[in-house]
Amino acid sequence: MTKLNPATTALVVIDVQKGFLQREANGERRNNPEAVSNMARLLDAFRRRGMHVIHIRHASTNPGSLLRPELPGFASMDETREIGEEPVLVKSVNSGFIGTDLEQRLRNAAVDTVVLVGATTNHCVETTARLAGNLGFDARLVEDACYTFDRTGHGGRRESAEDIHAMTLSNLDGEFATIETTDSLLAALETSAAA
Amino acid sequence: MTKLNPATTALVVIDVQKGFLQREANGERRNNPEAVSNMARLLDAFRRRGMHVIHIRHASTNPGSLLRPELPGFASMDETREIGEEPVLVKSVNSGFIGTDLEQRLRNAAVDTVVLVGATTNHCVETTARLAGNLGFDARLVEDACYTFDRTGHGGRRESAEDIHAMTLSNLDGEFATIETTDSLLAALETSAAA
Repeated sequence: MTKLNPATTALVVIDVQKGFLQREANGERRNNPEAVSNMARLLDAFRRRGMHVIHIRHASTNPGSLLRPELPGFASMDETREIGEEPVLVKSVNSGFIGTDLEQRLRNAAVDTVVLVGATTNHCVETTARLAGNLGFDARLVEDACYTFDRTGHGGRRESAEDIHAMTLSNLDGEFATIETTDSLLAALETSAAA
Repeated sequence: MTKLNPATTALVVIDVQKGFLQREANGERRNNPEAVSNMARLLDAFRRRGMHVIHIRHASTNPGSLLRPELPGFASMDETREIGEEPVLVKSVNSGFIGTDLEQRLRNAAVDTVVLVGATTNHCVETTARLAGNLGFDARLVEDACYTFDRTGHGGRRESAEDIHAMTLSNLDGEFATIETTDSLLAALETSAAA
């Protein structure tokens, strides 16, 4: 098991916003039903240890988006809402590193390891993970604390959330990020605390 | 058909290096056998019109890579080699925008549209396309001028080059880039020239 240094590790919670609940309410099917509760478990573990937590929120400029900043869908889901002084960085593109001070904030805090959770796996989470890895961070994607939706892809291909999600994991694995589970991540924190 | 302004459009050729030929010679299977000849057709069309062409080359720091700068695999494939003053930008991560002056170079030249071709679809081409879109460029990925390889993915999933490639197109389509074909791109150039 990989250890984690609590002082140099940040949990980055990406776009866990109520607009995605509306997509489910509208009948869209997603994978990983336990993802948000896993995010909450990770948040709790990071907070109890006084570790870095950063929230990213998507303010869409797309007229049809449920994540426009003036809409109720922009709000954080209840389970993952920021507390205390936890920073909330607002972006309007997929990558959490573009149009925000995320990179500088991590470097100023001497963070070298970023634990990434959120939605959707293949868009904002994957893009942020690719950048995190390419910018030199030790990126850990928590596979059961992310999710995505079924869709009709390019050329009319029907793609399940599970297949889309799995391809993101394969694309990132070993090239941009280490794939973790909530349990593997929590165990790594326990090990580090005991060391 | 979308028009293209020849003065503000650049062809970006990503990692078309001999190391990928060695992977084929070593028995790895890829998709899009016509991809390199399509890249050559696009290069010819851009060059005949005096349009911007930028080459990106990957200098791997990975001990086992065929793309290490001191190895023969680092060299450009013959069909896509730079000519004249065409710039060659060298990077050591997946995104062509990290560790290079690609973004500044495009902005200095008033380029707003980037046509992306190269290898591999899901790693360096996709990462560069995600960044191009997120940085505000009109990104055009030419689906039959990119390719990738079969692999064993995360969790031991066997994934074909065709499925990996198709998922990249779906992930990018409409979110980060417009998916083009060599023919659609060449037709757009003809239309623009005639306008």
